[in-house]
Formats: sequence, C-alpha cells, structure tokens
Amino acid sequence: MPGESEIIAMIRARSGTVPRSGVEVGIGDDAAVLRPDSSTDLLFCSDLSVESVHFRTEWAEPEVIGKKALAVTVSDIAAMGGQPKFALASIAFSPASSMQFIEQLFSGMFDLAGALGFSLVGGDTSASPGPLFIDTSAIGVCGRGRAVTRSGARPGDLVYVTGELGASALGLSLLEAGLRLGAPAMGPDGLARQAAIRRHLLPEPRVMAGRTIGLAGVATAMIDISDGLATDLGHIVQDSKCGIVIRGKALPVARPLIELSSLGAIEDPLQLALGSGEEYELAFCARPEAVNSVRDLSYELELPITLIGEVIQDRGLFIELDKGTVTIEAKGFEHEI
Amino acid sequence: MPGESEIIAMIRARSGTVPRSGVEVGIGDDAAVLRPDSSTDLLFCSDLSVESVHFRTEWAEPEVIGKKALAVTVSDIAAMGGQPKFALASIAFSPASSMQFIEQLFSGMFDLAGALGFSLVGGDTSASPGPLFIDTSAIGVCGRGRAVTRSGARPGDLVYVTGELGASALGLSLLEAGLRLGAPAMGPDGLARQAAIRRHLLPEPRVMAGRTIGLAGVATAMIDISDGLATDLGHIVQDSKCGIVIRGKALPVARPLIELSSLGAIEDPLQLALGSGEEYELAFCARPEAVNSVRDLSYELELPITLIGEVIQDRGLFIELDKGTVTIEAKGFEHEI
Repeated sequence: MPGESEIIAMIRARSGTVPRSGVEVGIGDDAAVLRPDSSTDLLFCSDLSVESVHFRTEWAEPEVIGKKALAVTVSDIAAMGGQPKFALASIAFSPASSMQFIEQLFSGMFDLAGALGFSLVGGDTSASPGPLFIDTSAIGVCGRGRAVTRSGARPGDLVYVTGELGASALGLSLLEAGLRLGAPAMGPDGLARQAAIRRHLLPEPRVMAGRTIGLAGVATAMIDISDGLATDLGHIVQDSKCGIVIRGKALPVARPLIELSSLGAIEDPLQLALGSGEEYELAFCARPEAVNSVRDLSYELELPITLIGEVIQDRGLFIELDKGTVTIEAKGFEHEI
Repeated sequence: MPGESEIIAMIRARSGTVPRSGVEVGIGDDAAVLRPDSSTDLLFCSDLSVESVHFRTEWAEPEVIGKKALAVTVSDIAAMGGQPKFALASIAFSPASSMQFIEQLFSGMFDLAGALGFSLVGGDTSASPGPLFIDTSAIGVCGRGRAVTRSGARPGDLVYVTGELGASALGLSLLEAGLRLGAPAMGPDGLARQAAIRRHLLPEPRVMAGRTIGLAGVATAMIDISDGLATDLGHIVQDSKCGIVIRGKALPVARPLIELSSLGAIEDPLQLALGSGEEYELAFCARPEAVNSVRDLSYELELPITLIGEVIQDRGLFIELDKGTVTIEAKGFEHEI
C-alpha cells in the first residue's frame, strides 16, 4: 500500500468538491473544526465495515465498498430523525491495496457525501496486517430535543416501515453463490437477482425520510434496519419496555423475492423479509392519530411507508400469521465470521 | 468472541459512571444525542489502532491497550487547543477476544474518559477475521474561531515543545526486545527501561496543556507528536509555508535516554528524541512577544515547556548542531507492517 502522506494528499485534493457549510477546517489538520447551527442537538455515531465479515473485495468495486461503508453510518443519523452534516473515515488498508483502489474507495465516499449534502472532513489511515477495515463516524443535527430514540414507543402506537424488505438478504446469498453485480441477467429471474444484489451492495440510506419524519414530529421511536426487521424491532421492544405485533400479511416483501418465489426459487419470502439485515429502511412507531400525517409523508417523500403492526403492553415481539399469532425470537442477526 | 448484544449490554452498564454533561442520549441508540455549549466550535477527529501495527496484545494488559487507543484521539483534540467532550469507540474483536478481555479494554477507555472529563457515548463492535482493530473518534470544543491549526506559523515565531522526547521510541524498542511493563527492574538502568516502556504504552495526552494554550491564545500553530518531532514539525512547515530551525542542544531529551546514554546503552539520544513517534507531547509556535506568557503557562501547568527553535522564511526543517546547521529530511515515520 502507498504511504500515509501520499494517501492524505490525494484525499485533500479530492475533498475540494464537497459541500463546506459549517466546515471551518477540513481534512489535513489534527481535527476538523466545525460550526453547526447553534440551535440544534448533535447526533454522533460510528459503524464498522470489516473485510470478509461485512464485505468482500471480490464482490464489488472499491467505490461501492466505500459508499456502503459510509452509508451505514449515515443511516444511523437518519434513524434518529436527523440530517448528516460531517463524517470521518478511518481505514486500515491491506498490503494489497493499490493507490487506485484507495482513491476509488474514497471516491465512493465523496460521491455519497455530495449526493446527501454532508462533508467528509477527516479520519485516519493505517496499514492492516490482513483484512481491510473501515470505520466511519458521523455528526448529524436535529431540532433541540427532537431526536427520535428507540425508547419512546407506547401501547397503541402504530408501527411503520419504509420501502420494501428482504432483497438485501437475497442479494447476499446470491453473491455467496457466485453471482456478481452487472453480470448478464440470464433467465426470467435474471433482473430480479440483479436487483437483489444491487440492493445488498448499494443500500440507500433513508436520509430524506428520516429527517422529514423527525421534522414532522410524528415518530415516538425509530430505528434503521441493519440487523433485520425482527431484531431491530426487538431493540424498540426492549428499550421502550413494550411489545409489538406485526401483521404478516402487511409486510412489504421486496419485489425480487415475490418474483423468485412465484418461480419456485424461494420458499419463504416472509421469513426472508423478517430476517434480512443491511436493508437500511426505517422502522418507526407513531400515535394512531398521526395516521394521516404518515400517509401524507409517504406521498411527500414518494416512498412507500407501510403500516405493519401495533405496539402492545405485553412485552415481546409477535407476528400474526394465517395459522395464528406466534412469538418471534428477537435474537440477533449478529455478524459472525 | 461474545455476541454483539452481550458486549453492548456490558458497555451500557459500565457507561453509567462517566460524566454526562451535554449528553442527552448516550450508548445504545442509533446515535448519541449531544448538546454542547452553543458558543463553541467543534473539533472532530479519529485515530486507528491496529493489532501488530500499533500494538501487540502480548505487550500490555487490555486496559492499557484501550486507554492508549482512546488517548491518541484525545491528543488530537488537545493539539487543536480544545477540550474533548464526547468519544466513540469502534472495535473489531479477534476470534480470541474473551468477554473479560473486552470488558478490560473498555474499562481502560472509561477510566481515561473519567480522568479527563469527557464521555464515551457510543461506537460499534464487530468480529474481525484476524487482528484486533480499534478506531476511536472524538468531538471536542474550543472557543469560536480559536482552534489552533498547523497553518498559522509565521517567520519570527518561536517553537516550543511540552515535556520530554524520546522515551516512547526507546520503550518500543525494549518491548520488541522482549522486556515487559512491570517486569522486575534489573541492573542500574532497570528503572529507566521501565519508565521508557511505560511511556510508550501509557502516553499522557496533554489535554490540560492543549486547552490552556488554546484559551491563552498564544499559539500560532500546534500539533501533537505522534509521528516524531521532525515529521510533525514538517507538517507545520508544509502547512504554514515556512521553515523551522531546531536548536539541537535545546531539545528536551527524556531522562531514561540520558541515563542509558551515560551507561553507553544508547548511541545517539538526540536522534532518538527527534524521531520518536507516539510521544503525544505538543509542539507549538508562538510570537516572540509571547515568551513570558508561555513561561507563565509552564508554571501554571507544572509542565516543562521548552523553547527549541524558531520559524524562518526559508522552507524546510533544519537543526543546529555543533558541526553546523543541517537539513532534516521531513520524511514520515509512517506506520508500516
């Protein structure tokens, strides 16, 4: 890998093109100097992406890896109802990382920052004795006292989710089976498979939706779906000390799953949608009287927001199926090696 | 390694003991919610510590590794003249990491945060397929427009450094040679060797000094010594578009080096002091009329602040020795594998 000073010089040159609002000193000093609006609260979070745990370099171009590694952190800001403003990237490069690889990885990050209106203002680089290791951290802002935590859900609240679920897990299994992004889409299900792979590699953090939901003040609790709907609603259940019943029939199962299921290539799309991690959709709870406001938000955002269940008093996570209501083990989809 | 939820539960329980000023929501949600004083600028930075690049688990207890991994980031806040307020830790644990190891590592971090008055408010954990990876990021504050960058040095400024230099590099070489912290101090130089090892493993970030220098408004440029005095002054030279002449005789060579040198165990202590990385002392420039203010700061902080040189117009880094003035190659001590 190239030396640290060479990498930093490249990044400094590249950083000239990102938005600079609120950035007094950007990349290159001991720390970035920032001046956010003084009437806001700050949101502060980080997310790790580790080679062969979270991604494989043979599965995607470096731009795609960089973009996703930053998107997952930005998604956490969205899940608090905030707007990402500033980010750092700390990357330990493997001995095999070329300057071109490094440049393309950062290029993906700068592209995402530019598209979503925040600034990549610093970080750190190092050698790694083996795997590539990426940690991104971000500062976001939200109205004072308006951050949407996981702990505010109350019995009677309705539970919603943005977008569709399940394609990320499907995409992951297809990548593991040897399919690649951009490979010719063969057969009647080829396009569906490609869409699922794209979804896994290039998730769209719901920044506009998160900020809009936060500004509207409708959500009592919110989380982004990184570990799977069941696990992540389990976090709301735990922190809000309540229960949630999901209506199985209401779950917005992603189109590629429905298509592949109709061809007999997938057995249980509902199960896949419930467990699929790295979706980066938002799940949130809102008072029942906000039901029209939520529908209006869905139109405003041009994004499906689906009512999938209800918050109840009894602790636990449950799902209503044709055969009756069953308990979902709120156990983690935790990244293991 | 234990599961992520088990680790987070441990960290949440442990985090109850840290200062909470300005922390609206701490560890456990998608992001921490922070409310710093609105009249300040924010400082934002991160630093990587990678196993077998920056540290070895057989060299130190997990508390020591955790403390240093966070100290190096806090040092960057100090180098901007700021006060650390909030920090995150993202850690990828190797398969061998036990819950006890993880708990002790975080314990070292919480101890440092408590001692220096800032809050560890979140982060991320993951598995690593091999080495332990630690990335810490921090938000600090400083007076609006008062951040001390690397780019403000002007010809005529005097150059100062806090503390003493060289013991960290000596400690590193002793660790590489098989000595360990706390091993019985044998021979006349045993205590000196132990002091050097301690210095390498447990550097003290100059938070009080950095903040005090920042508040006093005396420094035109400042940097922490992470890569070695020569390399780090080289950054000031580059960013301030100036030159620096160091007086060799003035350099505050650390006591263990002087002792070992007098016993013939070290050949060139000055060279070691110039190149020694991971010292985390502060080097700064100040106008000549501030010489009395700097001396007062040294008394106030009960910390040696040594005048080591001068800023000149001619670009480059030079050192005055008995044999004359020579150029120092401002090439990096860059972490390689």
